Amino acid sequence: MKNALLVLIFGVLVLNVDGGLAADIPVSEATAECLECHASIHPGIVADWQNSRHSKITPKQALAVDGPARKVSSKTVPDNLQSNTVGCAECHTLRPDAHAGTFEHNGHDIHVVVSPNDCATCHSSETGQYSKNLMSHAYDNLDANKLYHKLQLSINGRKEFKDGKIKFDPADEATKAETCYYCHGTRLKVSGTETRDTELAGELEFPVIEGWPNQGVGRINLDGSLGSCAACHTRHAFSIEMARKPYTCKECHVGPDVPAFKVYEASKHGNIYSAMNKSWDFNAVPWTIGKDFTAPTCAACHISLLVNTDEEVVSERTHQMNNRLPWRIFGLVYAHPHPRSPDTSVIRNKDGQPLPTSLDGEFAAQYLIDEKEMDTRRKTMQAACLNCHGTSWVKGQWQRFENTIRQTNAEILTATDMMRDIWQKGLADLKANPFDEAIEKKWTDTWQFYANTIRFASAMGCGGDYGVYADGRYQLTQALLEMNDWRVLHEKFR
Amino acid sequence: MKNALLVLIFGVLVLNVDGGLAADIPVSEATAECLECHASIHPGIVADWQNSRHSKITPKQALAVDGPARKVSSKTVPDNLQSNTVGCAECHTLRPDAHAGTFEHNGHDIHVVVSPNDCATCHSSETGQYSKNLMSHAYDNLDANKLYHKLQLSINGRKEFKDGKIKFDPADEATKAETCYYCHGTRLKVSGTETRDTELAGELEFPVIEGWPNQGVGRINLDGSLGSCAACHTRHAFSIEMARKPYTCKECHVGPDVPAFKVYEASKHGNIYSAMNKSWDFNAVPWTIGKDFTAPTCAACHISLLVNTDEEVVSERTHQMNNRLPWRIFGLVYAHPHPRSPDTSVIRNKDGQPLPTSLDGEFAAQYLIDEKEMDTRRKTMQAACLNCHGTSWVKGQWQRFENTIRQTNAEILTATDMMRDIWQKGLADLKANPFDEAIEKKWTDTWQFYANTIRFASAMGCGGDYGVYADGRYQLTQALLEMNDWRVLHEKFR
Amino acid sequence: MKNALLVLIFGVLVLNVDGGLAADIPVSEATAECLECHASIHPGIVADWQNSRHSKITPKQALAVDGPARKVSSKTVPDNLQSNTVGCAECHTLRPDAHAGTFEHNGHDIHVVVSPNDCATCHSSETGQYSKNLMSHAYDNLDANKLYHKLQLSINGRKEFKDGKIKFDPADEATKAETCYYCHGTRLKVSGTETRDTELAGELEFPVIEGWPNQGVGRINLDGSLGSCAACHTRHAFSIEMARKPYTCKECHVGPDVPAFKVYEASKHGNIYSAMNKSWDFNAVPWTIGKDFTAPTCAACHISLLVNTDEEVVSERTHQMNNRLPWRIFGLVYAHPHPRSPDTSVIRNKDGQPLPTSLDGEFAAQYLIDEKEMDTRRKTMQAACLNCHGTSWVKGQWQRFENTIRQTNAEILTATDMMRDIWQKGLADLKANPFDEAIEKKWTDTWQFYANTIRFASAMGCGGDYGVYADGRYQLTQALLEMNDWRVLHEKFR
Repeated sequence: MKNALLVLIFGVLVLNVDGGLAADIPVSEATAECLECHASIHPGIVADWQNSRHSKITPKQALAVDGPARKVSSKTVPDNLQSNTVGCAECHTLRPDAHAGTFEHNGHDIHVVVSPNDCATCHSSETGQYSKNLMSHAYDNLDANKLYHKLQLSINGRKEFKDGKIKFDPADEATKAETCYYCHGTRLKVSGTETRDTELAGELEFPVIEGWPNQGVGRINLDGSLGSCAACHTRHAFSIEMARKPYTCKECHVGPDVPAFKVYEASKHGNIYSAMNKSWDFNAVPWTIGKDFTAPTCAACHISLLVNTDEEVVSERTHQMNNRLPWRIFGLVYAHPHPRSPDTSVIRNKDGQPLPTSLDGEFAAQYLIDEKEMDTRRKTMQAACLNCHGTSWVKGQWQRFENTIRQTNAEILTATDMMRDIWQKGLADLKANPFDEAIEKKWTDTWQFYANTIRFASAMGCGGDYGVYADGRYQLTQALLEMNDWRVLHEKFR
Repeated sequence: MKNALLVLIFGVLVLNVDGGLAADIPVSEATAECLECHASIHPGIVADWQNSRHSKITPKQALAVDGPARKVSSKTVPDNLQSNTVGCAECHTLRPDAHAGTFEHNGHDIHVVVSPNDCATCHSSETGQYSKNLMSHAYDNLDANKLYHKLQLSINGRKEFKDGKIKFDPADEATKAETCYYCHGTRLKVSGTETRDTELAGELEFPVIEGWPNQGVGRINLDGSLGSCAACHTRHAFSIEMARKPYTCKECHVGPDVPAFKVYEASKHGNIYSAMNKSWDFNAVPWTIGKDFTAPTCAACHISLLVNTDEEVVSERTHQMNNRLPWRIFGLVYAHPHPRSPDTSVIRNKDGQPLPTSLDGEFAAQYLIDEKEMDTRRKTMQAACLNCHGTSWVKGQWQRFENTIRQTNAEILTATDMMRDIWQKGLADLKANPFDEAIEKKWTDTWQFYANTIRFASAMGCGGDYGVYADGRYQLTQALLEMNDWRVLHEKFR
Repeated sequence: MKNALLVLIFGVLVLNVDGGLAADIPVSEATAECLECHASIHPGIVADWQNSRHSKITPKQALAVDGPARKVSSKTVPDNLQSNTVGCAECHTLRPDAHAGTFEHNGHDIHVVVSPNDCATCHSSETGQYSKNLMSHAYDNLDANKLYHKLQLSINGRKEFKDGKIKFDPADEATKAETCYYCHGTRLKVSGTETRDTELAGELEFPVIEGWPNQGVGRINLDGSLGSCAACHTRHAFSIEMARKPYTCKECHVGPDVPAFKVYEASKHGNIYSAMNKSWDFNAVPWTIGKDFTAPTCAACHISLLVNTDEEVVSERTHQMNNRLPWRIFGLVYAHPHPRSPDTSVIRNKDGQPLPTSLDGEFAAQYLIDEKEMDTRRKTMQAACLNCHGTSWVKGQWQRFENTIRQTNAEILTATDMMRDIWQKGLADLKANPFDEAIEKKWTDTWQFYANTIRFASAMGCGGDYGVYADGRYQLTQALLEMNDWRVLHEKFR
């Protein structure tokens, strides 16, 4: 009876909002209760959900889809979740004991932060793949690396001018949460509870969560799981369209350290996307090359399930993402074969430093994938290229790209040789912190901005001057010349 | 008879152009005369107007609309304007005596530059609000501030290399009109008349207007009024859609000094906008959260009348804009509570300088809004946030934002302490012009580019590395280190 | 019989792919053979072609169009090409003897690289115009200029740190192909053949082409012709829409040296484009101002055939592009009247250097267009402006623009005077290479980045701070001050 009433109320609400919800898809009693208040309090959230696939199909219907169009990768879904839409309660009351932040809320055990382990209920393959993705370990890959702590301190630390020197003190938690850890993800922690006087239900108690809000790719959740699916599949809309468009990736990959979006947008692929995408189908699963889209977005090359017009699979869907990447072109401080493990904090170079290469450019090979795996990944990536480009085109592109990896590594060796000379002569102090002096920052520019930009430009077939005048070879050369200018002057007048 | 003929002619023209004009909306006789020539001479202007609401509705019809959908805020509109479309003549012959540039043109008293006081005929509330907006005073806020004159000279002034020094001479008017005053607005002035041989009407006389063309937000018009509605409501299309899209704001707010657009575009809100806006309704008034749009644009947070899906008002429309802004995060040289008066040229800090803060960071409190007003504005802004985000999310976001205001102000104090040390030691000259030496420009970078960028990133919940590597904390730290490097070297070898 | 079978097979393929091909447009036998394999191997290419006009109309039908809507400019087309779609074979088997790379492929003489001289079969006027465009000579305009070789070396050359100096070695071919020559175009050359084991046809022999892939505007093709139509009319889609949208131009003109796109996007024109273009008609030929579009894109001002709503021609279509440009605002090292000849390698300034101006700013007048031609071009451009702007607006805009050309040239003279002082005093070495020292790079910044950016901003009526804070006058002044700072210090402590 109560259920019927709630469904009735919700039906009215739905009509008020959008009408997008099919009348015959049942909403669970618990979700209907949520909606009773939240449709008024949080109309933006509810409207997003109503426009989402989660409100328009039951897991049972989704499980019945066979073949590449299937979106639910779990073989089964618990019975009690099969026959209703995937609504508020379905996710926010799942596995209550697993989440540190679970609290009683109008008769339900709610957790605010839905985690990849919740999503795994229906999307187990994606959760599994993602756990092998470097991104899922992005918190500790940064936070558990002592050298990167020094880098962080030299950027986000509080600076004071004292006794003629710049003194660095650690950044506070709020600053950390909106800098590195905005993308890498914060470590969430329940620090207590607070009582709030709510509009519709009077005084209620809520958990206080440190590190919140955050949707970083490697967020450490209150159930101990790693990552946030909402980083790309934005909250409550769960939109494939959004995840497939490059703006989603831009949030963390626009540059100047990882200028993927900037380069893409100026590349021929990006040009085609920008000019023509309004007529593409971003919701088709699988995604058919030439039919649904005519140039790749980030997702096409790195994630999506692609088929050709004969409906043959070109690339399997992956949320590991690096399984199409032989190289990691983000220099640390050199480009290098991709790490074997998603946990990069375990890596040590030959000098014992937590870096995938040594300062002289040698790869920490035992922690990196081998030639054979690199070749597998290269071929996996090229399989997509070959649908629109001839073999000689693809071969030419990859020869240039891998040549550029070698050449930029050589340029960074030149920069680093100069920097080591500066350290050895005592003109800068390597030991205390290799990143916290003006000349060290200029050296950092060479590999973190310019070499990276050059490699991203090369990887995407160029465009937009990112290989030359826009944080490219011009600026790399300029930085090398300025470093040497500084070196000569300070050696002369030390 | 003549009128009927003109309407007939115009009717034919309309069919040639677009067909968008409803047949039964009468065009005034005067406007029909304008169109007779200008539909051929200026087809772009006429087409824009024909697609606009102004050509499709009479003020009388607009006045009949009640409630939040009403677009005409004036209680009444003069009788003679009520029953025709708002065409060429309705605006360009309004208040002829008020405009210095009015000239006789084929039997009509025309003024080229339509001003906010003309628009106030129908849109009085918006004009009134806008007059309280800092933007409307943007001309004198810059031009009547002697310190900013020095800043202008040090940027736009003509530079000569003479006797081993860089010498600055004032910029010419044409340069001024396309630099600072392009956005701030020029001061318009009729300097004479000129005769031109026109294609359709032979020799005609026109006024010569100094400072024209310009659509800056604080333009000083020929009727003495301040501002240009066309800055955002672009000429003759008067498009709500255009004003609500972020590209309009970008013209003046892309950075690096006020990087609002750049940051927005890379934020989660900007990501949702870019990916999904093609299916949003940008013309609905009022603008319903979740139904018409699913993530805010600039206008949603700062200007538009927003309602929730229960049709309750979330935010009142305002053209004052700062009435949702507790802080002015554009550092001068520190971020500070918003000025009380739109005329900031009256502000004096404790040292008598025309700045909202002193060089040691103290607020010129008597000229700035107080805590209570700040809290009111904070809550007005948060009312919108809360439609899509829970209380703890919004609270967390604002705590970080206001922490970042404090932290960046502290960093700028560090930069300024160093700069004062440099001035005191005579390594640079504060008195002549605090902005015209290389080391002073580096100091300017720290607050005008980097601290501002960091604050805008924080305000919009981050995204795109603007808090760190893209004119953010990395560059702020780098500039501080380079300033000190310079200081040490020049103190040693003075 | 074979033909009928192939058409049948292709018919099936077509249905699988898109259905966009009209059933009654005949595909040639040769093209049908191509499609038999390539629809499976290269579905992206085939789908693009199927969506293109080339698959939907025969040259005969195209030749029958009279007046401004006509897209085929050649008076006649060879009989054997008239009655089928313009398919794979029509272009890739054209003029087999002319192309060095022609190879036997399943019974057909194929060439991979279709050239402007192939396209001239139907589009002779465009090919002819384009050959007068500087772009078509972009390869040798760079490669045959000894001074620019030094510039290239100082940017893309391999740098070593040896004996306390930075030593430059020439870049390898792969690096050259993805830097300057990515946009300028590579010189293609057949270096041999290779045998590949193909999926559908076993072992086949293919030519190996040096410099491939490339779509640069001045590519030297295997038939000796210059340019690549695909630079803008992207491969196989041949889309007018794409060529008319600004993203295409962005690939080479985003900056910081030629920041046309960046400036456009932030200008009022760009704002209108970004906000409103979804409802414009990008495929209409001719392109009607006010009806098909309401603000210009790059193509509207520089290339397209524009008519007004009275169907009168406003601007003739041109692929010479510079015939609407009095000035070349890309400083070398000063802005100057446009070169007379598309081959700029012949230019010598009064000092015998291969530059359109001398170091003191004097134009190499005999190689540049004269005042009369400048005025013709100015008027050609203004004809488009005047459709949406009054005479006084356009006049004011151009006065500012040409004032800015003078002012920026004066600023660059200041920078160059300082640089010459530095060279004369032996603080830097002009002779070996004027571009390969830190102080020389800073001088290069002033003209190649900042003066250029200021001029592009002025040309497009400003927007986005590109005239001031975004690589504009602020940075130009800062660079001048830093140059002098360096000069004073190094003169004191040489």
